[in-house]
Amino acid sequence: MTKITAAITSVQGYVPEGILSNQDLEKMVDTNDEWITSRTGIKERRLAAKGEALSDFGAKIVAGICEKRGIDPSEIDMIVVGSITGDYRFPSAANVICDKAGCVNAWGFDLSAACSGFLYALDVGRVYVENGTYKKIIVIGADVMSSIINYEDRATCIIFGDGGGGVLLEPNEDGLGIQDAILRSDGAGRQFLLQEVGGSKEPLTKDNIDERRHYVFQEGKTVFKHAVKNMAGVSAEIMERNNLTSDDVDWLVPHQANLRIIDATANRMGLTKEKVMVNIEKFGNTTAGTIPLCLWEWEEKLNKGDNLVLASFGGGFTWGAIYLKWAY
Amino acid sequence: MTKITAAITSVQGYVPEGILSNQDLEKMVDTNDEWITSRTGIKERRLAAKGEALSDFGAKIVAGICEKRGIDPSEIDMIVVGSITGDYRFPSAANVICDKAGCVNAWGFDLSAACSGFLYALDVGRVYVENGTYKKIIVIGADVMSSIINYEDRATCIIFGDGGGGVLLEPNEDGLGIQDAILRSDGAGRQFLLQEVGGSKEPLTKDNIDERRHYVFQEGKTVFKHAVKNMAGVSAEIMERNNLTSDDVDWLVPHQANLRIIDATANRMGLTKEKVMVNIEKFGNTTAGTIPLCLWEWEEKLNKGDNLVLASFGGGFTWGAIYLKWAY
Repeated sequence: MTKITAAITSVQGYVPEGILSNQDLEKMVDTNDEWITSRTGIKERRLAAKGEALSDFGAKIVAGICEKRGIDPSEIDMIVVGSITGDYRFPSAANVICDKAGCVNAWGFDLSAACSGFLYALDVGRVYVENGTYKKIIVIGADVMSSIINYEDRATCIIFGDGGGGVLLEPNEDGLGIQDAILRSDGAGRQFLLQEVGGSKEPLTKDNIDERRHYVFQEGKTVFKHAVKNMAGVSAEIMERNNLTSDDVDWLVPHQANLRIIDATANRMGLTKEKVMVNIEKFGNTTAGTIPLCLWEWEEKLNKGDNLVLASFGGGFTWGAIYLKWAY
Repeated sequence: MTKITAAITSVQGYVPEGILSNQDLEKMVDTNDEWITSRTGIKERRLAAKGEALSDFGAKIVAGICEKRGIDPSEIDMIVVGSITGDYRFPSAANVICDKAGCVNAWGFDLSAACSGFLYALDVGRVYVENGTYKKIIVIGADVMSSIINYEDRATCIIFGDGGGGVLLEPNEDGLGIQDAILRSDGAGRQFLLQEVGGSKEPLTKDNIDERRHYVFQEGKTVFKHAVKNMAGVSAEIMERNNLTSDDVDWLVPHQANLRIIDATANRMGLTKEKVMVNIEKFGNTTAGTIPLCLWEWEEKLNKGDNLVLASFGGGFTWGAIYLKWAY
């Protein structure tokens, strides 16, 4: 019996139209374009329109995927959404996306893993396809970070943006698609990147909202240190255990949190800049959205059989790497 | 090659000590014991202690599972948590649970599917085991509903309670464990059972907190109607497609939302009351927690080879049924 692999057969990204530039931020908080650019690589980021929720991103992503692949939304079996900014705390955005996009035969759920949300969700999709349970799964990574960012906190508001993307996973019998995945977490890092209140540990009150502790908090230096170590480490590890040399890897698709983390990862893997997808200057850190946004922007340059390494690090801490062979 | 199935090999429940009885509620809102009992079957529910978060439930559940099974937490490969009340909106409670319980080699995530959270998470665990990716997965369903309930809203505060449980999933080569799963969702039902604000659709503000729209809202009649139809329907469907008669089914393990929904489901399946697990009178609706809490309370009565049908319906709407053969 031929081994079934799970292959990406279509990709679609979405970013809202609104642009928040470094120049705009200079007027809002004590920062400047030179500082932001040199520290993070970000020049501008996108902002959702008022009332535009995660499911609105998701419905456009699903529609784009189905149109490109020439299938009807009713053919989709399952939608897995990596996100921390669903429309509601419950129900999940996956349910709303299915309803808005006409995926009448799909079930699905949101999966919480912060910046590693897309990789975690992609791996869930992988097992359902490899297992033969489903034949058409859409995996979305997207976030409306503006809904949880304090635009008076210069440590976070300069970094995050809104957007995301998704992929269609289908069975492949030619050995293309996802080859390996390493996924990790370490909850000991939770206090360095989180939304402090709003969960069962400290439910919402008018007081803690007033203190703005429901927004994203990041202790940047600590997160940076762990990100460099773990994202580079897991990327090197997945190359090693699949006997991949720098020459074998065609593309690194890194989570876009900070240009210096990306550079450190590429260096560790021995890759030249030409092999590294970077669009952080345009979109900032869209949390679960960065990796599918890169795949979408680079889709035209990818060739069947190309070796891609997807890598992420984020809140949790969560991190991981997925090695796949592009299938079209 | 022997087909691998995913079997439950241990189960552990947890409820906090604090009790909120119908008599207590009579003093808080305009209701009474007779009304609550006749409409829902609930006599009392548990309340988490101040500061007790979902990860505290989860760490106790993991410790109990490992102790009963005689394994070390470091042997766990993955933890999937079905819940809508994680410690934080991010990072996920799964990360915190791994840290608190010493699951140093596990990764995991929270999955949002309201009252169907445990069934959805159990199915994710199933594919990872069947697929051969992992050998020891803990699936948790638990909620700290008191963190999102308005105790001045008699439509919801009488129903929900805190608690949950978890199971260990391991590969089985004797055909025991999970046999079939049907999982469904319909986002068109989202407005009838939800937390209206606090997501990307309507971010938190002092005003909408003041209006108490961040709490659980339920339009009870509509949810009841859909619950009866869909939970009974999917339970009958899974019997039919596995050629199970009423005699073949040893136990129905229904989500505990309302005694009348449970009765309707049992009737549709042709089951007598003796075959139906019911503990709603003690714990109320613990959302993702109800089904593992039942398995835990009935563990001693279960025999190897028993046919169990697990069924749920909840916010989303989400619903489903899982048919499994008890493995010990």
